[in-house]
Amino acid sequence: MRTQVAIIGSGPAGLLLGQLLTNTGVDNVILERATREHVLSRIRAGVLEEGTTAMLQEAGAGSRMRAEGLPHDGFDLAFDGRRHRVDLHGLTGKRVMVYGQTEVTRDLMEKRARSGGRSIYEAVNVRPHGFDTDRPHVTYQKGGREHRIDCDFIAGCDGYHGVARRSVPQGAIEIFERAFPFGWLGIIADVPPVGPELVYANHPRGFALCSMRSHTRSRYYVQVPIEEKIEDWPDERFWDELRRRLPKATAEAVTTGPSVEKSIAPIRSFVAEPLRFGRLFLAGDAGHIVPPTGAKGLNLAASDVRYLFDALHEFYTEKSQAGLDAYSRRALARVWKAERFSWWMTNTLHRFPDHGGFGQKIQHAELDYLFSSRAALTALAENYVGLPY
Amino acid sequence: MRTQVAIIGSGPAGLLLGQLLTNTGVDNVILERATREHVLSRIRAGVLEEGTTAMLQEAGAGSRMRAEGLPHDGFDLAFDGRRHRVDLHGLTGKRVMVYGQTEVTRDLMEKRARSGGRSIYEAVNVRPHGFDTDRPHVTYQKGGREHRIDCDFIAGCDGYHGVARRSVPQGAIEIFERAFPFGWLGIIADVPPVGPELVYANHPRGFALCSMRSHTRSRYYVQVPIEEKIEDWPDERFWDELRRRLPKATAEAVTTGPSVEKSIAPIRSFVAEPLRFGRLFLAGDAGHIVPPTGAKGLNLAASDVRYLFDALHEFYTEKSQAGLDAYSRRALARVWKAERFSWWMTNTLHRFPDHGGFGQKIQHAELDYLFSSRAALTALAENYVGLPY
Repeated sequence: MRTQVAIIGSGPAGLLLGQLLTNTGVDNVILERATREHVLSRIRAGVLEEGTTAMLQEAGAGSRMRAEGLPHDGFDLAFDGRRHRVDLHGLTGKRVMVYGQTEVTRDLMEKRARSGGRSIYEAVNVRPHGFDTDRPHVTYQKGGREHRIDCDFIAGCDGYHGVARRSVPQGAIEIFERAFPFGWLGIIADVPPVGPELVYANHPRGFALCSMRSHTRSRYYVQVPIEEKIEDWPDERFWDELRRRLPKATAEAVTTGPSVEKSIAPIRSFVAEPLRFGRLFLAGDAGHIVPPTGAKGLNLAASDVRYLFDALHEFYTEKSQAGLDAYSRRALARVWKAERFSWWMTNTLHRFPDHGGFGQKIQHAELDYLFSSRAALTALAENYVGLPY
Repeated sequence: MRTQVAIIGSGPAGLLLGQLLTNTGVDNVILERATREHVLSRIRAGVLEEGTTAMLQEAGAGSRMRAEGLPHDGFDLAFDGRRHRVDLHGLTGKRVMVYGQTEVTRDLMEKRARSGGRSIYEAVNVRPHGFDTDRPHVTYQKGGREHRIDCDFIAGCDGYHGVARRSVPQGAIEIFERAFPFGWLGIIADVPPVGPELVYANHPRGFALCSMRSHTRSRYYVQVPIEEKIEDWPDERFWDELRRRLPKATAEAVTTGPSVEKSIAPIRSFVAEPLRFGRLFLAGDAGHIVPPTGAKGLNLAASDVRYLFDALHEFYTEKSQAGLDAYSRRALARVWKAERFSWWMTNTLHRFPDHGGFGQKIQHAELDYLFSSRAALTALAENYVGLPY
């Protein structure tokens, strides 16, 4: 088989890139190790920047999001028993859209099916080859047979655990990372959210977050030690702990109900440099991970795809390599700013076992200062709604 | 002897408080362990916020500062071989004044002498007593004799190593602190400064700062490991190291010359809580230390004195304790914001032996982001010129 761009991974990054390419007549194939259903079962983020929603529209996959997504003008930070609103729209003129990553993925899959894009699910043992030459190819196994796709470029959109980054010679890649000593225990429950906007809570017992997927589906999180076991967290214990970390009136307003999903996610920062190796490009989680505080993960995947799609489009329409040559630098500049923001927001809102009294006082001073300074609050807001591409 | 306010320490905090009290007819005595000359030989900071210069004016000790001080509209941050200006005045409408702490102290001492204020130098073994009662007193030795001053209030303005804070029962005070693993090696030289404004440099070899005291007297610093010995830093080595950490054109413009002062200062954050114990009040370094990055030390002493003087004035004119009761909370709220800023600026500009690649990348992202965001740069600038009292 031959295509122009072989895309590894059928998550939002791969699907979005594939759709933009398809829409402009660039042939592409998506290879995915899992089943379509498995991909759709992954629970991920759900706060989209305007740049991300604009790309979904551009891809032609934005109509359900426009109809069902929840535009949010702000969110609350809670500390010392009080809630303080961050007026995103007032401070930046922008909004964010609450719309689950699962829904984004589903919409992109359906759009791809409608436009006849080729996706190969359950492609086993996918391997990129020859990306240091002008004639790369990808091999995989399916139905007991070995397959080969010859292509111009390979896009590694296969996430942190994917094969794309691991195919790069060790000496060609540099890894920057930090693991945090806690995780997020999260649940989904089919109950109305506690309020119309998100509430991020800094509390002596640890961080908590009230989020949502819709008017009838809530997403809640509490910070837990990284070694915590999910079996030790029956629903009742989760709800109790959540309410202890929220201001009184908020806690009392929480509607509880049985969890339909419950899991503990590790919190880490990770960046691989560069993001380009000859004709192999990494985009999204394949190249970088942010802590979920600040909801930047999916949005960074979208901005990577923005730069990568523009570069490929330029290559195919103008025969110019300039965009491809600039891809890694451009994408990483934005990635690092989002890493900084996510790291800052994580540091500001969580309880750190080793920070001691001074660290907690600094954290408190940071929050106090934020709500006394329009400049500082604007800096937070402009990062939250997404820095310019 | 009897007075209304006994002030321990003849540094800028004690002198400024004493002068404001004297100007409003509140009797006070300053007790100082060292000689007048020794106090004046201490080399300290030299960047004054507008709130600080306004208080010097209010005290009647501002005329030489107005004539000889250097108003600065901005400063530069250097990294990656380039300088980036922070336009303080453009961003905040405010300026800072470069005028050495030694000169501030001298002007306040002269004003005190002119207005007949009592200062007792070489007062040995000063001790505050009975500050948990309505009738505190201070004892000291001088000329081989024990003396006693009865008073209404005691102001502990005697610095980090002073007796005032150490006189408080351990259980009544909480200490928050962080030591940084480096110091500042600083020199003064009678050469023209490298430029009209300060330059703060982030460099792989470590932080450097180009500052000044006047058009003919320069103050330079380089970050060094905390265990470094001053004997190992002959002038030539200092100048070489300084120039290696500056952008090329800046390095070439440095005028070198023999140092007239050279020392290594530790870098630490320290806050005691509360700042009031009955009728004993801590102000300035007696209650808190900031890293010098951001030049907040002297300015925090001034804001403490602002709150404390206003409270004492209210007490003597209106018989109200409200200001005294609010002193610790008010002063600490501003102290912690300045601690946060100084800690942030220290973290952003220094090389940390244990931060690793990720920490350096975050630092770099912070600097990149600063100069791409008017909001973030405004937040820096508003802290640098001084948050509102």
